[in-house]
Amino acid sequence: MKIKSFRSVASQYKAIFFDSYGVLKNYNGLIEGVENTIQELRNQGIIIHVLTNDASRGPQELAEKFHKLGLIEIEADDIISSGMMAREYLRLKVKEGTVAYLGTENSAHYIETANLHTIPLSDLDFDKVHEISALVLLDDEGFDWNTDFNKAINLLRIRNIPVVIANTDHTYPVSGNQVALAIGGIGNLLESVVKKRFIRFGKPDSQMFIFAYEHLLQKSNLHKSEILMVGDSLRTDIMGGNKFGFDTALVLTGKTLPKEAKMLIKTTGVIPDYVCESVAMG
Amino acid sequence: MKIKSFRSVASQYKAIFFDSYGVLKNYNGLIEGVENTIQELRNQGIIIHVLTNDASRGPQELAEKFHKLGLIEIEADDIISSGMMAREYLRLKVKEGTVAYLGTENSAHYIETANLHTIPLSDLDFDKVHEISALVLLDDEGFDWNTDFNKAINLLRIRNIPVVIANTDHTYPVSGNQVALAIGGIGNLLESVVKKRFIRFGKPDSQMFIFAYEHLLQKSNLHKSEILMVGDSLRTDIMGGNKFGFDTALVLTGKTLPKEAKMLIKTTGVIPDYVCESVAMG
Amino acid sequence: MKIKSFRSVASQYKAIFFDSYGVLKNYNGLIEGVENTIQELRNQGIIIHVLTNDASRGPQELAEKFHKLGLIEIEADDIISSGMMAREYLRLKVKEGTVAYLGTENSAHYIETANLHTIPLSDLDFDKVHEISALVLLDDEGFDWNTDFNKAINLLRIRNIPVVIANTDHTYPVSGNQVALAIGGIGNLLESVVKKRFIRFGKPDSQMFIFAYEHLLQKSNLHKSEILMVGDSLRTDIMGGNKFGFDTALVLTGKTLPKEAKMLIKTTGVIPDYVCESVAMG
Amino acid sequence: MKIKSFRSVASQYKAIFFDSYGVLKNYNGLIEGVENTIQELRNQGIIIHVLTNDASRGPQELAEKFHKLGLIEIEADDIISSGMMAREYLRLKVKEGTVAYLGTENSAHYIETANLHTIPLSDLDFDKVHEISALVLLDDEGFDWNTDFNKAINLLRIRNIPVVIANTDHTYPVSGNQVALAIGGIGNLLESVVKKRFIRFGKPDSQMFIFAYEHLLQKSNLHKSEILMVGDSLRTDIMGGNKFGFDTALVLTGKTLPKEAKMLIKTTGVIPDYVCESVAMG
Repeated sequence: MKIKSFRSVASQYKAIFFDSYGVLKNYNGLIEGVENTIQELRNQGIIIHVLTNDASRGPQELAEKFHKLGLIEIEADDIISSGMMAREYLRLKVKEGTVAYLGTENSAHYIETANLHTIPLSDLDFDKVHEISALVLLDDEGFDWNTDFNKAINLLRIRNIPVVIANTDHTYPVSGNQVALAIGGIGNLLESVVKKRFIRFGKPDSQMFIFAYEHLLQKSNLHKSEILMVGDSLRTDIMGGNKFGFDTALVLTGKTLPKEAKMLIKTTGVIPDYVCESVAMG
Repeated sequence: MKIKSFRSVASQYKAIFFDSYGVLKNYNGLIEGVENTIQELRNQGIIIHVLTNDASRGPQELAEKFHKLGLIEIEADDIISSGMMAREYLRLKVKEGTVAYLGTENSAHYIETANLHTIPLSDLDFDKVHEISALVLLDDEGFDWNTDFNKAINLLRIRNIPVVIANTDHTYPVSGNQVALAIGGIGNLLESVVKKRFIRFGKPDSQMFIFAYEHLLQKSNLHKSEILMVGDSLRTDIMGGNKFGFDTALVLTGKTLPKEAKMLIKTTGVIPDYVCESVAMG
Repeated sequence: MKIKSFRSVASQYKAIFFDSYGVLKNYNGLIEGVENTIQELRNQGIIIHVLTNDASRGPQELAEKFHKLGLIEIEADDIISSGMMAREYLRLKVKEGTVAYLGTENSAHYIETANLHTIPLSDLDFDKVHEISALVLLDDEGFDWNTDFNKAINLLRIRNIPVVIANTDHTYPVSGNQVALAIGGIGNLLESVVKKRFIRFGKPDSQMFIFAYEHLLQKSNLHKSEILMVGDSLRTDIMGGNKFGFDTALVLTGKTLPKEAKMLIKTTGVIPDYVCESVAMG
Repeated sequence: MKIKSFRSVASQYKAIFFDSYGVLKNYNGLIEGVENTIQELRNQGIIIHVLTNDASRGPQELAEKFHKLGLIEIEADDIISSGMMAREYLRLKVKEGTVAYLGTENSAHYIETANLHTIPLSDLDFDKVHEISALVLLDDEGFDWNTDFNKAINLLRIRNIPVVIANTDHTYPVSGNQVALAIGGIGNLLESVVKKRFIRFGKPDSQMFIFAYEHLLQKSNLHKSEILMVGDSLRTDIMGGNKFGFDTALVLTGKTLPKEAKMLIKTTGVIPDYVCESVAMG
């Protein structure tokens, strides 16, 4: 495993898709050097998108969070979130009824903008369970795990409805050495208990990459080989990017620790085209 | 699938091992006819044991719960709980240090009687994490799922210690048609997140059956073929009983609903020797 | 679950995507009424595609097989096979070296047309293992399971290379009541033994649906809601179609037996928009 | 992880249970120093048992294989094989009919000595499928994988009978750096395809340890804490030994390579009490 400078890697591509958490920012704020990198890439005319498995809020709010951290170059239109896949599914396939959700009020954005009624699962009255047409798992916050997890089990024992997991991450970092369970992990447990097949959106699933690629094609007619996916997670960013046909670069500022990278690439068989210390261009 | 009367089945055996929840009692109290059945079996000289995946309290308290419900014939000494397996493991293999646990104070009984210091995971100060020599999952109550689940993940990222799941059930019924997640389900999620191998005690694991069988041999020299295991769960009671070499009877007063029994036996391939409506002897 | 006539369902759509095996044909030849259905749909101007998880031969040969059975309306250009996804991946991501494969010589078509050298795994000399740049699983025939499965394990212990499963089916029917293991099932075992992450192509994966959809858009600018996916498998055709946003119809002439359909829809939570006895238009 | 000399470890115990393959012997013959170790332990009055997941032949033949290699001290009575667990199950629970098996003729020993009729699955005529009362997976040799695996799938689609896996190993070493799939791996695939629950015997399952412990108690009244389990596999020998309450020693002459041992103990959370280079006493 040879570490390459991000500058030398990036210059070979006409568009770069970045994961957000662990790549552009973390629990401390922006990753060192990110503002400069984004500025330089823009100057070189390289198109930038952010592909995030974060369904906890809409793209506008996700962009505003970047702005508050000082990264003013990222606009809502540059952001593709897994919540947007969930919204497209709801629009196309769940045309009526009320959609119950696990997550914060912010995360319900994706259901509301699909023009569906929403109800947090915690507010659901079991007498009205027959009005529910889908259950969407959006965020690990905003509900009581014990109470609402059991409510979800029992909802799905009564109603045979689609269940959407809008974030496939299992955990996320909350400090330098601590992680927390993400809604994807909670969804896996719920699926194994009710023994049904849920619908997952978010990297490594191809639908997220398709969506981003089509979004890009509206601006510029690039071939897949001209696009680089940059991420900190072998399982989501690199696996998904490789499978979709993009070149991939693993950075070591997030989930994959520098000391583990070589071993993990070997044991998982998920092989990035490049490994870079970070997206900083030094 | 032919339904047999429990009376005709029971009379062929010299000892009968009963699962507790769904067989002798449920959320409403005792299953109809249970007092009479136990009385009659005792009168016929049939030895009775209760084998339960309940590690939420010690055998003395489990017996007292039966007494309060009106089943005065069950003594602490008749009860084998999965918590007792966990205790034996701790005694033999975790000789020192403090054992952290998820569960109620009552459930900590099994660690305390192994002469080990205990601490509820919620009280654990991360500065003292190096004193922890094992983590035991005892009960789904007594802790905040969100906070303490994440604490468990992070404890296991720092400390390479044995993790014991003292109840392998995934869910348990809380009313006529609702279920709740059991600590075994929480344990499965934790194991998949930290990617380590936990130690599980409780049916269908053989260790529970050998413990009960050896306990029985102290009173009476019976052959395995003279013993019947009665349970409401194909996955735990019947699977485990079959594998250990006992004859098995499925009752339809708990997890396995009458309308599903035939289909479940076929799809799982877990085949009880008998199916009875309940343990009532009518 | 209400059974609808395929005629009434089909007339609502402008394009219909059919699974092949179990929908258009089976081990006996064409499903009754298929020629007429395809003819009628063409007459109504409905665009037809075949989406198959069959990577055992190229689209031209797949079309010829239909012709021999008497279905002359299906052309190579109408067929999207999972092998085509594997080929695109190989083209974009495996630019050099020799690709080893499990499958018949016919199935190697997909690697050869990616302009890569191929070698059946059985011919691989372990002295030349370092020339191998990928392993592709194409078909369950054409190799000795025992010898070549073990060869695959050992190749992957030495070489950290991408492994592609070009058919995600677990089994396929070989007569009225017998099934055989498909290459997807063999791939799952290989993956669990070597503990690496393989790349899977084929329904329910979205990449197959996007490929077909883009192919369609070259002819006609249809919205996803104007397209129907018809299949016999809940896990692949219906799950994948639903997730991608197509309407879906389950037919009962293949994997899903008429007597099981209702129960399987309930237990899996995979819910087709329609259930039809077959594609026959009566 | 501190490496200890086996001499210093062994002297603390009154009985030692050895795994066979990777501990006492390998593809080359006896592990260096084994004869001397067994001799010395016998001289010290330490009781020796061999616990092996090898169901490919009976204990008498397993002992004779040791004798041919020059280890004349191991008698049939010292050997506990997973096949013996399968035999006990068949005796107690499958009282009549014909038992079909996958494996060599030698491996059928365990079914024959349970006084049951046997038939290799390859010889089974599907007209006589209703005479089959169980299927036992004994060895990865003696049958054609392709033909007979598919025959097993279809047998289990027609007949709801117990399936026993008499060897839980996934792979076994066949040379210095090559492995082969073991019958346990084939069994896992079969189970996932037919979606039924099989009965597994062999380490790490407790039943094997119970059987060995009870066998030992007939000779000497030892406490669990006086017994050491020595193995080369964390997943089977060490996991199972720990759980049963024995002390455990990992040796590095088999599955667990010296360079991986530390990392594997950390990532699996399966922690041996000791790590020794080999059983040689130098």
